Amino acid sequence: MPFVNVKLTAGATAAQKEELIAGITDLLVRVLNKNPASTHVVIEDIAPENWGIRGQTVAALRAAGDPGVSKG
Amino acid sequence: MPFVNVKLTAGATAAQKEELIAGITDLLVRVLNKNPASTHVVIEDIAPENWGIRGQTVAALRAAGDPGVSKG
Amino acid sequence: MPFVNVKLTAGATAAQKEELIAGITDLLVRVLNKNPASTHVVIEDIAPENWGIRGQTVAALRAAGDPGVSKG
Amino acid sequence: MPFVNVKLTAGATAAQKEELIAGITDLLVRVLNKNPASTHVVIEDIAPENWGIRGQTVAALRAAGDPGVSKG
Amino acid sequence: MPFVNVKLTAGATAAQKEELIAGITDLLVRVLNKNPASTHVVIEDIAPENWGIRGQTVAALRAAGDPGVSKG
Amino acid sequence: MPFVNVKLTAGATAAQKEELIAGITDLLVRVLNKNPASTHVVIEDIAPENWGIRGQTVAALRAAGDPGVSKG
Repeated sequence: MPFVNVKLTAGATAAQKEELIAGITDLLVRVLNKNPASTHVVIEDIAPENWGIRGQTVAALRAAGDPGVSKG
Repeated sequence: MPFVNVKLTAGATAAQKEELIAGITDLLVRVLNKNPASTHVVIEDIAPENWGIRGQTVAALRAAGDPGVSKG
Repeated sequence: MPFVNVKLTAGATAAQKEELIAGITDLLVRVLNKNPASTHVVIEDIAPENWGIRGQTVAALRAAGDPGVSKG
Repeated sequence: MPFVNVKLTAGATAAQKEELIAGITDLLVRVLNKNPASTHVVIEDIAPENWGIRGQTVAALRAAGDPGVSKG
Repeated sequence: MPFVNVKLTAGATAAQKEELIAGITDLLVRVLNKNPASTHVVIEDIAPENWGIRGQTVAALRAAGDPGVSKG
Repeated sequence: MPFVNVKLTAGATAAQKEELIAGITDLLVRVLNKNPASTHVVIEDIAPENWGIRGQTVAALRAAGDPGVSKG
Protein backbone atom coordinates (compact mmCIF):
# COMPACT_ATOMS: atom_id res chain seq x y z
CA MET A 1 0.00 0.00 0.00
CA PRO A 2 2.68 2.51 -0.58
CA PHE A 3 1.81 5.98 -1.75
CA VAL A 4 4.64 8.05 -3.16
CA ASN A 5 4.38 11.76 -3.90
CA VAL A 6 7.18 13.28 -5.96
CA LYS A 7 7.37 17.06 -6.17
CA LEU A 8 9.62 18.27 -8.99
CA THR A 9 10.40 21.63 -10.46
CA ALA A 10 8.49 21.58 -13.76
CA GLY A 11 10.21 20.34 -16.88
CA ALA A 12 10.24 16.54 -16.82
CA THR A 13 8.98 14.96 -20.04
CA ALA A 14 6.23 12.34 -20.18
CA ALA A 15 8.86 9.68 -20.93
CA GLN A 16 10.92 10.71 -17.90
CA LYS A 17 7.83 10.56 -15.69
CA GLU A 18 7.06 7.06 -16.97
CA GLU A 19 10.60 6.01 -16.15
CA LEU A 20 10.35 7.46 -12.63
CA ILE A 21 7.01 5.78 -11.97
CA ALA A 22 8.27 2.41 -13.24
CA GLY A 23 11.54 2.71 -11.30
CA ILE A 24 10.00 3.73 -7.98
CA THR A 25 7.38 0.97 -8.23
CA ASP A 26 10.04 -1.65 -9.05
CA LEU A 27 12.06 -0.50 -6.06
CA LEU A 28 9.12 -0.84 -3.68
CA VAL A 29 8.31 -4.29 -5.04
CA ARG A 30 11.92 -5.42 -4.83
CA VAL A 31 12.90 -3.92 -1.45
CA LEU A 32 9.63 -4.30 0.44
CA ASN A 33 7.76 -6.94 -1.57
CA LYS A 34 4.90 -4.50 -2.11
CA ASN A 35 1.98 -5.36 -4.36
CA PRO A 36 2.31 -3.20 -7.51
CA ALA A 37 -1.48 -3.10 -7.89
CA SER A 38 -1.71 -1.04 -4.71
CA THR A 39 1.43 1.05 -5.28
CA HIS A 40 0.60 4.60 -6.34
CA VAL A 41 3.07 7.27 -7.43
CA VAL A 42 1.86 10.83 -7.96
CA ILE A 43 4.15 13.41 -9.56
CA GLU A 44 3.55 17.11 -9.03
CA ASP A 45 5.20 19.72 -11.25
CA ILE A 46 6.06 22.84 -9.28
CA ALA A 47 6.71 26.15 -11.04
CA PRO A 48 10.19 27.57 -10.28
CA GLU A 49 8.68 30.68 -8.72
CA ASN A 50 6.82 28.45 -6.24
CA TRP A 51 9.87 26.51 -4.99
CA GLY A 52 12.21 28.13 -2.50
CA ILE A 53 15.61 27.04 -1.29
CA ARG A 54 18.09 29.10 0.72
CA GLY A 55 15.30 31.65 1.13
CA GLN A 56 15.10 32.37 -2.60
CA THR A 57 12.96 31.02 -5.37
CA VAL A 58 14.44 28.55 -7.85
CA ALA A 59 13.39 31.05 -10.53
CA ALA A 60 15.64 33.70 -8.95
CA LEU A 61 18.52 31.29 -8.27
CA ARG A 62 18.47 30.06 -11.86
CA ALA A 63 18.31 33.62 -13.21
CA ALA A 64 21.44 34.33 -11.16
CA GLY A 65 23.17 31.26 -12.64
CA ASP A 66 23.39 29.36 -9.38
CA PRO A 67 25.12 26.04 -10.19
CA GLY A 68 23.44 24.08 -7.40
CA VAL A 69 19.98 24.51 -8.81
CA SER A 70 20.68 24.95 -12.50
CA LYS A 71 20.48 21.25 -13.15
CA GLY A 72 17.65 20.23 -10.94
CA MET B 1 -9.27 20.98 13.04
CA PRO B 2 -9.25 18.38 10.37
CA PHE B 3 -7.47 19.00 7.11
CA VAL B 4 -8.35 16.70 4.25
CA ASN B 5 -6.42 16.53 1.00
CA VAL B 6 -8.04 14.64 -1.86
CA LYS B 7 -5.91 13.83 -4.88
CA LEU B 8 -7.99 12.81 -7.91
CA THR B 9 -7.19 12.12 -11.51
CA ALA B 10 -8.50 15.19 -13.30
CA GLY B 11 -12.05 15.25 -14.59
CA ALA B 12 -14.39 15.90 -11.65
CA THR B 13 -16.89 18.67 -12.33
CA ALA B 14 -17.38 21.68 -10.05
CA ALA B 15 -20.69 20.17 -8.86
CA GLN B 16 -19.01 16.86 -8.00
CA LYS B 17 -16.30 18.70 -6.06
CA GLU B 18 -18.96 20.59 -4.10
CA GLU B 19 -20.67 17.31 -3.28
CA LEU B 20 -17.38 15.76 -2.11
CA ILE B 21 -16.51 18.77 0.05
CA ALA B 22 -19.99 18.82 1.63
CA GLY B 23 -19.98 15.05 2.18
CA ILE B 24 -16.52 14.83 3.73
CA THR B 25 -17.25 17.77 6.02
CA ASP B 26 -20.58 16.26 7.12
CA LEU B 27 -18.83 12.99 7.87
CA LEU B 28 -16.20 14.66 10.05
CA VAL B 29 -18.87 16.61 11.92
CA ARG B 30 -21.04 13.54 12.41
CA VAL B 31 -18.35 10.96 13.29
CA LEU B 32 -15.91 13.12 15.21
CA ASN B 33 -18.02 16.12 16.22
CA LYS B 34 -15.59 18.43 14.41
CA ASN B 35 -16.26 22.13 14.05
CA PRO B 36 -17.13 22.75 10.38
CA ALA B 37 -15.61 26.25 10.58
CA SER B 38 -12.19 24.71 11.05
CA THR B 39 -12.64 21.77 8.67
CA HIS B 40 -10.76 22.27 5.42
CA VAL B 41 -10.91 20.05 2.36
CA VAL B 42 -8.50 20.66 -0.52
CA ILE B 43 -8.94 18.82 -3.81
CA GLU B 44 -6.04 18.42 -6.21
CA ASP B 45 -6.59 17.39 -9.83
CA ILE B 46 -3.75 15.20 -11.08
CA ALA B 47 -3.11 14.75 -14.79
CA PRO B 48 -3.29 11.07 -15.87
CA GLU B 49 0.33 11.14 -17.03
CA ASN B 50 1.37 12.16 -13.51
CA TRP B 51 -0.39 9.31 -11.67
CA GLY B 52 1.20 5.89 -11.64
CA ILE B 53 -0.23 2.57 -10.52
CA ARG B 54 1.26 -0.88 -11.15
CA GLY B 55 4.36 0.93 -12.45
CA GLN B 56 2.48 2.56 -15.33
CA THR B 57 0.80 5.88 -15.78
CA VAL B 58 -2.99 6.08 -15.67
CA ALA B 59 -2.70 7.68 -19.13
CA ALA B 60 -1.03 4.50 -20.46
CA LEU B 61 -3.37 2.14 -18.59
CA ARG B 62 -6.44 3.95 -19.93
CA ALA B 63 -5.02 3.97 -23.47
CA ALA B 64 -4.67 0.19 -23.13
CA GLY B 65 -8.29 -0.13 -21.98
CA ASP B 66 -7.45 -1.34 -18.48
CA PRO B 67 -10.80 -1.88 -16.72
CA GLY B 68 -9.45 -1.21 -13.23
CA VAL B 69 -8.58 2.39 -13.99
CA SER B 70 -11.04 3.23 -16.74
CA LYS B 71 -13.67 4.36 -14.33
CA GLY B 72 -11.61 6.11 -11.74
CA MET C 1 -7.42 6.38 -8.15
CA PRO C 2 -8.20 8.78 -5.41
CA PHE C 3 -5.82 9.22 -2.53
CA VAL C 4 -7.20 10.95 0.54
CA ASN C 5 -5.07 12.16 3.41
CA VAL C 6 -6.90 13.16 6.59
CA LYS C 7 -4.95 15.02 9.25
CA LEU C 8 -6.73 15.05 12.61
CA THR C 9 -5.78 16.20 16.05
CA ALA C 10 -5.15 12.95 17.89
CA GLY C 11 -7.97 11.27 19.76
CA ALA C 12 -10.15 9.44 17.23
CA THR C 13 -10.87 5.84 18.20
CA ALA C 14 -10.24 2.87 15.91
CA ALA C 15 -14.00 2.56 15.35
CA GLN C 16 -14.29 6.22 14.37
CA LYS C 17 -11.40 5.82 11.93
CA GLU C 18 -13.10 2.81 10.35
CA GLU C 19 -16.27 4.84 9.97
CA LEU C 20 -14.38 7.72 8.34
CA ILE C 21 -12.56 5.41 5.93
CA ALA C 22 -15.78 3.62 4.95
CA GLY C 23 -17.68 6.90 4.58
CA ILE C 24 -15.07 8.70 2.49
CA THR C 25 -14.67 5.67 0.22
CA ASP C 26 -18.43 5.35 -0.25
CA LEU C 27 -18.62 9.03 -1.14
CA LEU C 28 -15.91 8.73 -3.80
CA VAL C 29 -17.59 5.67 -5.27
CA ARG C 30 -21.01 7.29 -5.26
CA VAL C 31 -20.08 10.81 -6.45
CA LEU C 32 -17.28 9.99 -8.87
CA ASN C 33 -17.81 6.30 -9.63
CA LYS C 34 -14.31 5.55 -8.36
CA ASN C 35 -13.07 1.98 -8.05
CA PRO C 36 -12.90 1.17 -4.31
CA ALA C 37 -9.95 -1.17 -4.92
CA SER C 38 -7.81 1.80 -5.88
CA THR C 39 -9.21 4.25 -3.33
CA HIS C 40 -6.81 4.85 -0.46
CA VAL C 41 -7.48 6.87 2.68
CA VAL C 42 -4.64 7.60 5.09
CA ILE C 43 -5.35 9.15 8.49
CA GLU C 44 -2.64 11.00 10.38
CA ASP C 45 -3.00 11.79 14.08
CA ILE C 46 -1.39 15.12 14.91
CA ALA C 47 -0.46 15.99 18.50
CA PRO C 48 -2.19 19.18 19.75
CA GLU C 49 1.17 20.87 20.30
CA ASN C 50 1.97 20.33 16.60
CA TRP C 51 -1.21 21.91 15.21
CA GLY C 52 -1.49 25.68 15.06
CA ILE C 53 -4.49 27.86 14.34
CA ARG C 54 -4.75 31.62 14.82
CA GLY C 55 -1.00 31.57 15.53
CA GLN C 56 -1.36 29.38 18.63
CA THR C 57 -1.16 25.67 19.20
CA VAL C 58 -4.34 23.68 19.72
CA ALA C 59 -2.76 22.58 23.00
CA ALA C 60 -2.61 26.21 24.17
CA LEU C 61 -6.07 27.09 22.83
CA ARG C 62 -7.63 24.10 24.57
CA ALA C 63 -5.82 24.90 27.82
CA ALA C 64 -7.35 28.38 27.59
CA GLY C 65 -10.82 26.88 27.08
CA ASP C 66 -11.26 28.21 23.56
CA PRO C 67 -14.69 27.01 22.39
CA GLY C 68 -13.80 26.93 18.69
CA VAL C 69 -11.22 24.20 19.15
CA SER C 70 -12.50 22.42 22.23
CA LYS C 71 -14.62 20.05 20.22
CA GLY C 72 -12.42 19.35 17.29
CA MET D 1 16.30 19.68 6.64
CA PRO D 2 12.98 21.29 6.92
CA PHE D 3 10.47 20.96 4.13
CA VAL D 4 7.58 23.40 4.18
CA ASN D 5 4.51 23.08 1.97
CA VAL D 6 2.22 26.10 1.82
CA LYS D 7 -1.18 25.65 0.23
CA LEU D 8 -2.85 28.97 -0.63
CA THR D 9 -5.97 29.93 -2.49
CA ALA D 10 -4.62 31.25 -5.78
CA GLY D 11 -3.86 34.93 -6.13
CA ALA D 12 -0.51 35.63 -4.46
CA THR D 13 1.88 37.60 -6.64
CA ALA D 14 5.43 36.51 -7.41
CA ALA D 15 6.73 39.21 -5.06
CA GLN D 16 4.50 37.99 -2.23
CA LYS D 17 5.69 34.43 -2.77
CA GLU D 18 9.32 35.59 -2.60
CA GLU D 19 8.56 37.37 0.65
CA LEU D 20 6.89 34.26 2.12
CA ILE D 21 9.77 32.01 1.09
CA ALA D 22 12.37 34.41 2.52
CA GLY D 23 10.38 34.89 5.72
CA ILE D 24 9.70 31.21 6.42
CA THR D 25 13.33 30.32 5.74
CA ASP D 26 14.58 33.09 8.04
CA LEU D 27 12.25 31.86 10.75
CA LEU D 28 13.53 28.26 10.51
CA VAL D 29 17.13 29.49 10.58
CA ARG D 30 16.51 31.79 13.53
CA VAL D 31 14.27 29.53 15.67
CA LEU D 32 15.80 26.13 14.93
CA ASN D 33 19.24 27.01 13.57
CA LYS D 34 18.42 25.17 10.34
CA ASN D 35 20.80 25.23 7.39
CA PRO D 36 19.18 27.43 4.71
CA ALA D 37 20.83 25.33 1.96
CA SER D 38 18.65 22.39 2.95
CA THR D 39 15.50 24.36 3.74
CA HIS D 40 12.87 23.97 1.03
CA VAL D 41 9.56 25.82 0.80
CA VAL D 42 7.02 24.79 -1.84
CA ILE D 43 3.95 26.93 -2.47
CA GLU D 44 0.86 25.45 -4.08
CA ASP D 45 -1.87 27.66 -5.53
CA ILE D 46 -5.30 26.10 -5.05
CA ALA D 47 -8.28 27.21 -7.15
CA PRO D 48 -11.18 28.53 -5.01
CA GLU D 49 -13.48 25.80 -6.32
CA ASN D 50 -11.02 23.18 -4.99
CA TRP D 51 -10.82 24.50 -1.42
CA GLY D 52 -13.64 23.74 0.98
CA ILE D 53 -14.35 25.17 4.41
CA ARG D 54 -17.56 24.76 6.44
CA GLY D 55 -18.64 22.23 3.81
CA GLN D 56 -18.68 24.81 1.00
CA THR D 57 -16.14 25.85 -1.58
CA VAL D 58 -14.27 29.11 -1.14
CA ALA D 59 -15.65 30.02 -4.58
CA ALA D 60 -19.21 29.71 -3.25
CA LEU D 61 -18.45 31.44 0.06
CA ARG D 62 -16.82 34.39 -1.72
CA ALA D 63 -19.72 34.62 -4.18
CA ALA D 64 -22.01 34.87 -1.15
CA GLY D 65 -19.86 37.65 0.33
CA ASP D 66 -18.73 35.68 3.35
CA PRO D 67 -16.44 37.99 5.35
CA GLY D 68 -14.36 35.19 6.87
CA VAL D 69 -13.00 34.05 3.55
CA SER D 70 -13.17 37.23 1.51
CA LYS D 71 -9.71 38.30 2.52
CA GLY D 72 -7.87 35.06 2.55
CA MET E 1 15.11 20.03 -6.02
CA PRO E 2 12.95 17.00 -5.83
CA PHE E 3 11.09 16.21 -2.66
CA VAL E 4 9.75 12.69 -2.34
CA ASN E 5 7.32 11.59 0.36
CA VAL E 6 6.81 7.85 0.77
CA LYS E 7 3.92 6.68 2.92
CA LEU E 8 4.21 3.02 3.91
CA THR E 9 2.28 0.77 6.21
CA ALA E 10 4.64 0.41 9.17
CA GLY E 11 7.12 -2.44 9.25
CA ALA E 12 10.05 -1.53 7.01
CA THR E 13 13.43 -2.01 8.68
CA ALA E 14 16.10 0.68 8.89
CA ALA E 15 18.13 -1.19 6.24
CA GLN E 16 15.14 -1.32 3.88
CA LYS E 17 14.55 2.40 4.36
CA GLU E 18 18.21 3.12 3.54
CA GLU E 19 17.86 1.05 0.39
CA LEU E 20 14.70 2.91 -0.64
CA ILE E 21 16.28 6.32 -0.01
CA ALA E 22 19.42 5.40 -1.97
CA GLY E 23 17.40 3.88 -4.82
CA ILE E 24 14.95 6.74 -5.22
CA THR E 25 17.77 9.30 -5.12
CA ASP E 26 19.78 7.37 -7.72
CA LEU E 27 16.74 7.22 -9.95
CA LEU E 28 16.17 10.98 -9.77
CA VAL E 29 19.84 11.66 -10.49
CA ARG E 30 19.90 9.21 -13.40
CA VAL E 31 16.55 10.02 -15.04
CA LEU E 32 16.36 13.77 -14.40
CA ASN E 33 19.97 14.71 -13.67
CA LYS E 34 18.92 16.07 -10.28
CA ASN E 35 21.48 17.29 -7.77
CA PRO E 36 21.59 14.69 -4.95
CA ALA E 37 22.46 17.43 -2.43
CA SER E 38 19.02 18.93 -2.92
CA THR E 39 17.12 15.65 -3.25
CA HIS E 40 15.12 14.85 -0.13
CA VAL E 41 13.19 11.66 0.58
CA VAL E 42 10.93 11.46 3.63
CA ILE E 43 9.41 8.14 4.68
CA GLU E 44 6.31 8.03 6.85
CA ASP E 45 5.24 4.84 8.62
CA ILE E 46 1.47 4.56 8.79
CA ALA E 47 -0.23 2.25 11.30
CA PRO E 48 -2.45 -0.38 9.62
CA GLU E 49 -5.53 0.96 11.41
CA ASN E 50 -4.88 4.37 9.80
CA TRP E 51 -4.68 3.14 6.20
CA GLY E 52 -7.86 2.36 4.32
CA ILE E 53 -8.36 0.63 1.01
CA ARG E 54 -11.66 -0.64 -0.43
CA GLY E 55 -13.35 1.18 2.45
CA GLN E 56 -11.70 -0.98 5.12
CA THR E 57 -8.58 -0.56 7.18
CA VAL E 58 -5.48 -2.55 6.29
CA ALA E 59 -5.67 -3.86 9.86
CA ALA E 60 -9.10 -5.35 9.16
CA LEU E 61 -8.17 -6.65 5.70
CA ARG E 62 -5.07 -8.37 7.07
CA ALA E 63 -7.04 -9.87 9.96
CA ALA E 64 -9.41 -11.32 7.34
CA GLY E 65 -6.48 -12.79 5.41
CA ASP E 66 -6.94 -10.63 2.32
CA PRO E 67 -4.22 -11.66 -0.13
CA GLY E 68 -4.02 -8.27 -1.86
CA VAL E 69 -2.82 -6.48 1.25
CA SER E 70 -1.10 -9.28 3.15
CA LYS E 71 2.23 -8.61 1.52
CA GLY E 72 2.28 -4.91 1.33
CA MET F 1 -7.28 29.79 4.02
CA PRO F 2 -3.66 28.87 4.04
CA PHE F 3 -2.58 25.47 5.21
CA VAL F 4 1.08 25.06 6.04
CA ASN F 5 2.77 21.71 6.65
CA VAL F 6 6.24 21.80 8.16
CA LYS F 7 8.25 18.60 8.17
CA LEU F 8 11.24 18.74 10.53
CA THR F 9 13.76 16.22 11.71
CA ALA F 10 12.62 15.50 15.26
CA GLY F 11 14.03 17.54 18.12
CA ALA F 12 12.23 20.88 18.21
CA THR F 13 10.95 21.80 21.65
CA ALA F 14 7.34 22.78 22.37
CA ALA F 15 8.47 26.42 22.78
CA GLN F 16 10.23 26.37 19.41
CA LYS F 17 7.13 24.92 17.76
CA GLU F 18 5.00 27.68 19.29
CA GLU F 19 7.43 30.26 17.94
CA LEU F 20 7.31 28.72 14.45
CA ILE F 21 3.51 28.58 14.43
CA ALA F 22 3.21 32.18 15.60
CA GLY F 23 5.84 33.38 13.13
CA ILE F 24 4.45 31.61 10.08
CA THR F 25 0.92 32.80 10.89
CA ASP F 26 2.10 36.40 11.35
CA LEU F 27 3.89 36.24 8.03
CA LEU F 28 0.78 35.02 6.19
CA VAL F 29 -1.32 37.71 7.82
CA ARG F 30 1.23 40.44 7.06
CA VAL F 31 2.20 39.44 3.50
CA LEU F 32 -1.10 38.12 2.19
CA ASN F 33 -3.64 39.64 4.59
CA LYS F 34 -4.86 36.14 5.48
CA ASN F 35 -7.41 35.60 8.22
CA PRO F 36 -5.56 34.03 11.18
CA ALA F 37 -8.73 32.12 12.18
CA SER F 38 -8.46 30.06 9.01
CA THR F 39 -4.67 29.76 8.96
CA HIS F 40 -3.51 26.30 9.98
CA VAL F 41 0.07 25.18 10.54
CA VAL F 42 0.81 21.51 11.12
CA ILE F 43 4.29 20.40 12.20
CA GLU F 44 5.45 16.84 11.62
CA ASP F 45 8.49 15.45 13.42
CA ILE F 46 10.41 13.04 11.21
CA ALA F 47 12.84 10.52 12.68
CA PRO F 48 16.40 10.92 11.30
CA GLU F 49 16.32 7.39 9.89
CA ASN F 50 13.24 8.35 7.85
CA TRP F 51 14.74 11.45 6.20
CA GLY F 52 17.12 11.03 3.28
CA ILE F 53 19.33 13.57 1.59
CA ARG F 54 22.10 12.88 -0.92
CA GLY F 55 20.86 9.28 -0.95
CA GLN F 56 21.65 8.70 2.73
CA THR F 57 19.62 9.00 5.88
CA VAL F 58 20.13 11.98 8.16
CA ALA F 59 20.87 9.40 10.86
CA ALA F 60 23.80 8.09 8.83
CA LEU F 61 25.02 11.54 7.79
CA ARG F 62 24.98 12.74 11.38
CA ALA F 63 26.78 9.61 12.58
CA ALA F 64 29.48 10.41 10.01
CA GLY F 65 29.75 13.99 11.31
CA ASP F 66 28.49 15.62 8.13
CA PRO F 67 28.52 19.39 8.79
CA GLY F 68 25.68 20.18 6.38
CA VAL F 69 23.12 18.20 8.36
CA SER F 70 24.57 18.37 11.85
CA LYS F 71 22.73 21.54 12.67
CA GLY F 72 19.45 20.97 11.04
